[in-house]
Amino acid sequence: MAELIKVAVDAHGGDNAPTEVVKGVVMALNELDNLKVYLVGMEDIINKELEGKTYDKDRLEIVNATEIIQMAEPPVAAIRRKKDSSIVKGMHLVRNGEADAFVSCGSTGAVLVGGQVIVGRLKGVERPPLAPLIPTAKGFTLLIDCGANVDAKPSNLVQFAKMGTVYMKKMMGIENPTVGIVNIGAEEEKGNMLVKDTFPMLKNCPDINFIGSVEARDIPSGYCDIVVCDAFVGNVILKLYEGLSSMLVSEIKGAMMSSTRSKIGGALVKPAIKNKMKSFSSSEYGGAPLLGLKGLVVKGHGSSDDVEIKNAIRQAVQYTESGMLNILSESFAITEAQEEE
Amino acid sequence: MAELIKVAVDAHGGDNAPTEVVKGVVMALNELDNLKVYLVGMEDIINKELEGKTYDKDRLEIVNATEIIQMAEPPVAAIRRKKDSSIVKGMHLVRNGEADAFVSCGSTGAVLVGGQVIVGRLKGVERPPLAPLIPTAKGFTLLIDCGANVDAKPSNLVQFAKMGTVYMKKMMGIENPTVGIVNIGAEEEKGNMLVKDTFPMLKNCPDINFIGSVEARDIPSGYCDIVVCDAFVGNVILKLYEGLSSMLVSEIKGAMMSSTRSKIGGALVKPAIKNKMKSFSSSEYGGAPLLGLKGLVVKGHGSSDDVEIKNAIRQAVQYTESGMLNILSESFAITEAQEEE
Repeated sequence: MAELIKVAVDAHGGDNAPTEVVKGVVMALNELDNLKVYLVGMEDIINKELEGKTYDKDRLEIVNATEIIQMAEPPVAAIRRKKDSSIVKGMHLVRNGEADAFVSCGSTGAVLVGGQVIVGRLKGVERPPLAPLIPTAKGFTLLIDCGANVDAKPSNLVQFAKMGTVYMKKMMGIENPTVGIVNIGAEEEKGNMLVKDTFPMLKNCPDINFIGSVEARDIPSGYCDIVVCDAFVGNVILKLYEGLSSMLVSEIKGAMMSSTRSKIGGALVKPAIKNKMKSFSSSEYGGAPLLGLKGLVVKGHGSSDDVEIKNAIRQAVQYTESGMLNILSESFAITEAQEEE
Repeated sequence: MAELIKVAVDAHGGDNAPTEVVKGVVMALNELDNLKVYLVGMEDIINKELEGKTYDKDRLEIVNATEIIQMAEPPVAAIRRKKDSSIVKGMHLVRNGEADAFVSCGSTGAVLVGGQVIVGRLKGVERPPLAPLIPTAKGFTLLIDCGANVDAKPSNLVQFAKMGTVYMKKMMGIENPTVGIVNIGAEEEKGNMLVKDTFPMLKNCPDINFIGSVEARDIPSGYCDIVVCDAFVGNVILKLYEGLSSMLVSEIKGAMMSSTRSKIGGALVKPAIKNKMKSFSSSEYGGAPLLGLKGLVVKGHGSSDDVEIKNAIRQAVQYTESGMLNILSESFAITEAQEEE
């Protein structure tokens, strides 16, 4: 048998935890033969959720954690104080090499802080970015960074572009992924100070396929494979995607219910537009990887159901199988060595 | 007869100029008895467009301008060099007091630069913001700033909040409009440096109804009446609104055409959802005022048709009638006087 890939999963992360998390873990174990899961959380509760479920018991281990970090808790304090929380214990499994990856649908802030503080950055990586895939007319685009780096430096953004390029190549199989920087106009001289300073650095970076500025208007059409920005702008884009899509979908649904005629029409078009609406009303495909750490951390959407949890776990397995960690590690260690020369 | 309100209009601004502009001007003249229009542009072309149209000729004056500032021209150079362009000449009419307002659907950059350089700022105003109304589930929200202030200071944002408040009160009749600052979380300690520094200043500002942070996710629901941000973030929001809405609408339309069943359904729901889709596929209501100048400048959407041009002209008339200029002028002059004490 091939070596098992070990994924730690936060049993208490997300709106539908622990029920959907445990269901998702069981689905993943049944789908992936080479997966071992460390399910981190309150043992009693997890055991109760597992009752009556069929899976390979040798490949599931419960790691007891007595605390839960709530969504609203200030992340730094929570990571520091709640040593026995599912997030802190899960991160430690990765840090210690017991697990290859950690998946959580819990507090984004706590996951970001825990990733940086507990798992730790790869040598040469300045700031670890959170990089969700957002839906576009052509499929999806990597939006990097949506994490914690709200006052980013140009060199951070260049690293984001490099990490995103490796991710899209290795994980998504895109040969020469295009990179754009979020800007308010197409010309190089446009933008705020950060963008103006970053633009020439991206232009001169040999490791990426930089195609210039991308205006926010062109992101949904799938203008480029990787969209680079600081985390403040990234969060605005991600959250507006979510808010606007779900509002439009509900407005259109509401209009369809407004008369008998439109209700009949609505019933007829429903099968055709249902998937379209669904893919856009959730703003992300799968979990968002927190890149540049000494192990993978995947942040799943807070509203994830069992299938989405399963997909996030599969993503962690694929990431580990792809050897991305080594590639990133080597590429950034080299960069640092060159700079130190 | 009441005194005429004089509005200068750029005959050559926008994708549909001059035909739709001239049609819009004629519509406005026929709708508003107290309007006088200075139509600025190439006399021969304008006269040709006016042929056969019925309107009060005493209230339309053509101001000949032999140059046109193109959309792609670098704005500062264009304003400096093209002295005989419709934008520069229209701005001068406002500066000289010959017109109360100037309406253009041309280059945003040129309008922003021209407004600041030619019309000039009111005493006490640090930076003039461009403030479009964007559609929400509840109606509309003022997004301030979407202009040129991409590296704004906290004091700029506080002024934007104040100007936006006066605008929403006077122009939209909202008694005590709520103000939110774009942020990546609800808590005061969240955000980038600019937001962290601005938040307490907004909280302590007596002239506005500040309700704290607004996450981008909540903007489309109409969470607050005025959304304050720097122009980089504002442009990202505005353009993503536009791109995402039109993409979603076209995806849904496409799905409706995918089978006979859905085509029939689509025909039945069309009347009900048509207006919803339309209101969101254009990202703005009316023209966007450039506030804080010694006269009003209204930037109409580049794709404006005759009705939208007419509405932008009506907006300029209402602005002038409302006495907003005096209110703004007094309020900022006072602030400056207090600060100088």
